[in-house]
Amino acid sequence: MHRTHTCGELTIKNLGQEVILSGWVQKSRDLGGTTFIDVRDRYGLTQLVVNTDDEATLRTKVKDLGREFVIKVKGIVVERSNKNPKIATGDVEIKVSDLEILNVAKLPPFMIEDETDGGEELRMKYRYLDLRRNPVRNNLILRHKMAQEIRKYLDAQGFLEVETPVLIKSTPEGARDFVVPSRMNPGEFYALPQSPQTFKQLLMVSGFDRYFQIVKCFRDEDLRADRQPEFTQIDCEMAFIEQEDILNLFEGLTRHMFKNVKDLELGDFPRMDYADAMRLYGSDKPDIRFDMQFVSLTPTLSEGEGAKDLVKGFGFPVFDNAELVVGINAKGAASYTRKQLDELTDFVKRPQIGATGLIYMRHNEDGTLKSSVDKFYDETQLKKWSEAFATTPGDLVLIMAGGTDKVRKQLNELRLEMGNRLGLRDKNKFAPLWVIDFPLLEWDEESERYHAMHHPFTSPKPEDIALLDSKPGEVRANAYDLVINGTEIGGGSIRIHDKELQSIMFKHLGFSPEEAQKQFGFLLEAFEYGAPPHGGIAFGFDRLVSIVAGLDSIRDVIAFPKNNSGRDVMIDSPSTIDEKQKKELNIETTV
Amino acid sequence: MHRTHTCGELTIKNLGQEVILSGWVQKSRDLGGTTFIDVRDRYGLTQLVVNTDDEATLRTKVKDLGREFVIKVKGIVVERSNKNPKIATGDVEIKVSDLEILNVAKLPPFMIEDETDGGEELRMKYRYLDLRRNPVRNNLILRHKMAQEIRKYLDAQGFLEVETPVLIKSTPEGARDFVVPSRMNPGEFYALPQSPQTFKQLLMVSGFDRYFQIVKCFRDEDLRADRQPEFTQIDCEMAFIEQEDILNLFEGLTRHMFKNVKDLELGDFPRMDYADAMRLYGSDKPDIRFDMQFVSLTPTLSEGEGAKDLVKGFGFPVFDNAELVVGINAKGAASYTRKQLDELTDFVKRPQIGATGLIYMRHNEDGTLKSSVDKFYDETQLKKWSEAFATTPGDLVLIMAGGTDKVRKQLNELRLEMGNRLGLRDKNKFAPLWVIDFPLLEWDEESERYHAMHHPFTSPKPEDIALLDSKPGEVRANAYDLVINGTEIGGGSIRIHDKELQSIMFKHLGFSPEEAQKQFGFLLEAFEYGAPPHGGIAFGFDRLVSIVAGLDSIRDVIAFPKNNSGRDVMIDSPSTIDEKQKKELNIETTV
Repeated sequence: MHRTHTCGELTIKNLGQEVILSGWVQKSRDLGGTTFIDVRDRYGLTQLVVNTDDEATLRTKVKDLGREFVIKVKGIVVERSNKNPKIATGDVEIKVSDLEILNVAKLPPFMIEDETDGGEELRMKYRYLDLRRNPVRNNLILRHKMAQEIRKYLDAQGFLEVETPVLIKSTPEGARDFVVPSRMNPGEFYALPQSPQTFKQLLMVSGFDRYFQIVKCFRDEDLRADRQPEFTQIDCEMAFIEQEDILNLFEGLTRHMFKNVKDLELGDFPRMDYADAMRLYGSDKPDIRFDMQFVSLTPTLSEGEGAKDLVKGFGFPVFDNAELVVGINAKGAASYTRKQLDELTDFVKRPQIGATGLIYMRHNEDGTLKSSVDKFYDETQLKKWSEAFATTPGDLVLIMAGGTDKVRKQLNELRLEMGNRLGLRDKNKFAPLWVIDFPLLEWDEESERYHAMHHPFTSPKPEDIALLDSKPGEVRANAYDLVINGTEIGGGSIRIHDKELQSIMFKHLGFSPEEAQKQFGFLLEAFEYGAPPHGGIAFGFDRLVSIVAGLDSIRDVIAFPKNNSGRDVMIDSPSTIDEKQKKELNIETTV
Repeated sequence: MHRTHTCGELTIKNLGQEVILSGWVQKSRDLGGTTFIDVRDRYGLTQLVVNTDDEATLRTKVKDLGREFVIKVKGIVVERSNKNPKIATGDVEIKVSDLEILNVAKLPPFMIEDETDGGEELRMKYRYLDLRRNPVRNNLILRHKMAQEIRKYLDAQGFLEVETPVLIKSTPEGARDFVVPSRMNPGEFYALPQSPQTFKQLLMVSGFDRYFQIVKCFRDEDLRADRQPEFTQIDCEMAFIEQEDILNLFEGLTRHMFKNVKDLELGDFPRMDYADAMRLYGSDKPDIRFDMQFVSLTPTLSEGEGAKDLVKGFGFPVFDNAELVVGINAKGAASYTRKQLDELTDFVKRPQIGATGLIYMRHNEDGTLKSSVDKFYDETQLKKWSEAFATTPGDLVLIMAGGTDKVRKQLNELRLEMGNRLGLRDKNKFAPLWVIDFPLLEWDEESERYHAMHHPFTSPKPEDIALLDSKPGEVRANAYDLVINGTEIGGGSIRIHDKELQSIMFKHLGFSPEEAQKQFGFLLEAFEYGAPPHGGIAFGFDRLVSIVAGLDSIRDVIAFPKNNSGRDVMIDSPSTIDEKQKKELNIETTV
């Protein structure tokens, strides 16, 4: 027998018991005659005491022990004189009568401690050692718990988990597929799924009614900071439902999960139109842990030409020429120094953001208003700005100007940066938000036509269908995203199940009937055999876990992640394969 | 709103309620003035009554309805005069006040009924329609339930579900890998995992202690009748355990699952040595739903040369020259006709089985014994056979002779065939069995060396290690299989965690230290950092579901299976890809 207990469970209740423990040596301190050893496993840490004076055999073994050796000990649970309230087993220690070295260990390349001295690269190469560290393991335990709770909830709601195939068919649309040469079908390839979209819609045609899957998906993209070539989705689809049903159900799922893994009650999730999200936050995924909403100083479209314009006609060409002049009130930042303000200007001028400048107005503690454009705007004018931003003494207003879409994007970045600087983005606070009424179509500069914003099967809002011909960009879709803390957790849509409407949509997306047939023919055929009204949603599971864990990167919630070149540096993959294997697969490499 | 209830839930309790139902038209009978429509969804079937005399609008709509149209109806729940006790909703029907056609449907290519007229090929091409049929959907509901119960059990036992990567590294050992060209790493390939073996052992090195995953695995094999290129495994690994712990835990899992999805108590699972399984059933996966154990008429090795030999020295050359003469007692089959016996002889002579003939002895109802080799064996001799087989009047003894391994394999096939013919293989009966003490090594004729029977990290039984040099074929491993009804559900082993023992094993498997390093170097390195004693098991999930469902093929428990050429005929995959895509991936096809 390797153990009677784990290293995390012995307490004062076990006093006097003879126990067997197995685990890794965390550390060993020889106090001459007595050696203290901390033995560790997944469940915790227990202190061992070995009297090396009495027992020659024990002495020899203990002398040999190194960090991360695997040992098994037998001994009696005794009370510690020097208790450690920080750990669950801190009241007791084991007086060791027998010790066996189950395995030796080379010195690890970094410390197996909560705060390690190992850099990212070293930790990834020896990921199996990195995974011994509590914070890393705890992320994966959280991930496990979340997956269990998600399944429990969806199962209780009548969803069936159905495994869809991994070896599927390559489609020319969308992101790049990973492909798999077929040996049995020479010259042909499978593709790995970017999502089970087609299959889940087919399951609705099949009458499965409520489907879900926690499933690996694949995308051969150039990896940005926080993408992985393989990632996990919580994928769902329902039939005979409307948007409201889906929002309620998946809000319920999210609440259930937070309640059961974080013991947090999230309450009702607010909802926001896409248009409002763009107007008030310059983003379709606003972080609403803090306010700092956009305030426009130029009239909005709905206010019309005659509405107040607080900036134009004062001789300041930047504002005079701008489509939109818009700002935020960074409350309490009036004390920012020149240097800090310059940092902010540099921040928005970074090529990733690309602004040309930043205007500010301080509402000083003495009540005076001071702007960086005093030359053009006098105090009367600044007072109007102050009113618009509802400033109070101590506030700092930051204003940007330019084309609407561009300046909103830029101000969004600045808002988030100010949120960080002012400590408003607490990782232990969770602010979920439904963004709804996404546009159906978005204009693509390159191909000079409209593309489906979500996908070509997303249904338009019935009341907007009339606009398809006149103002296609204004047609809203039955599409929705769940955002938490400014991160898109997932989204979905109500699908088109009607053949006529689908044809209209294809026409507007610039597909000829032949092209539509070629690209989507298979699903369109299935839809002719009685497709029910249906819709769905998919959450990015890696992202969701990382948010709940309060982490910045999804890499920390994946057991064996890949780096930015798509490499697993631990197993050194991808790698070359035998010529024989290529021959069998009827392929050659051209490099 | 699309529905207030499903088509499976209305009963007499709902009388008088106005309800909305949505679903597919199963059938429609026009009785002139009144039309009866059966509407179906995943949950059941409900009868609708439409009075077409009163309502002109309803009349038109009902006239248009075809099979599999998707409809939504509003109406009042009324009691049926002509009740149908076969369905849950059989006491009621809906008096329809409003009917909406949500979607039309083309006539399906086969009947959507429990017994369909669609052949295998048609059903696979239109799998989304096949999945509408109750038996097919019920298999997938069973699969869902089993997966949930498995997770529930393992979670409660402290196992963590950890997702291991799908894009891994190709290894030259074992079955053929599917590979994935890497665009970002030109000329290099990922491989899809045949199992997460390496990763789960690494998780043990990481101290995860108890790991599981229900996970897709991939094998590029020539597909035999019931294999799929992608299949699902219940994959587990534990640290600080012994074989006994694993057997108990996974016996518990299996019992839990049968209890919770079939309401069946399986009791304790019997255990059988590999050697006994081969001796008594000629198979390492005996179907013990029925006895019919092998009886040897030649002395066994352990009985030695001097033991009874009931067949040799009577002038029958087939028996005289045979290493083993062995038979089964097919109880109650003495009445088999000449024709039936000829069929059995033809059965064993089929090339797949390859026997040269079959000897029988009838124990007639009148007590006489009659054999097909009366010329050589008189009644005194046959009586000894009768004793050996413990025959009673009405029994039929079937005997085969030849080399031990070959004849056992052949007689195993005959035993299973007789089990089928005599109705002894009841699909509603479940007979689990642990087969233990597998040989560590098996001789490979082709390479003329021993191979690991399980895999090279499987540990030998400590008491057999001494035999490694002298009798390698007799060394037993800490390896085990779970068999249910003659089907291998899964297996596993206790792994080697000791470097010295691993080196000895590699030597015996014919690996030079350099070769071992090249093939397994990465795992061996990880093992140097403190690998705990560990072991694991993996169940074939598709197979397990098919057994529980009482099905012969795993294809019936997979939502979207592939055919024997690895093709998905529904989506027509694999398929060719663009030249542009190949170019990006730095590959060319050679066909």
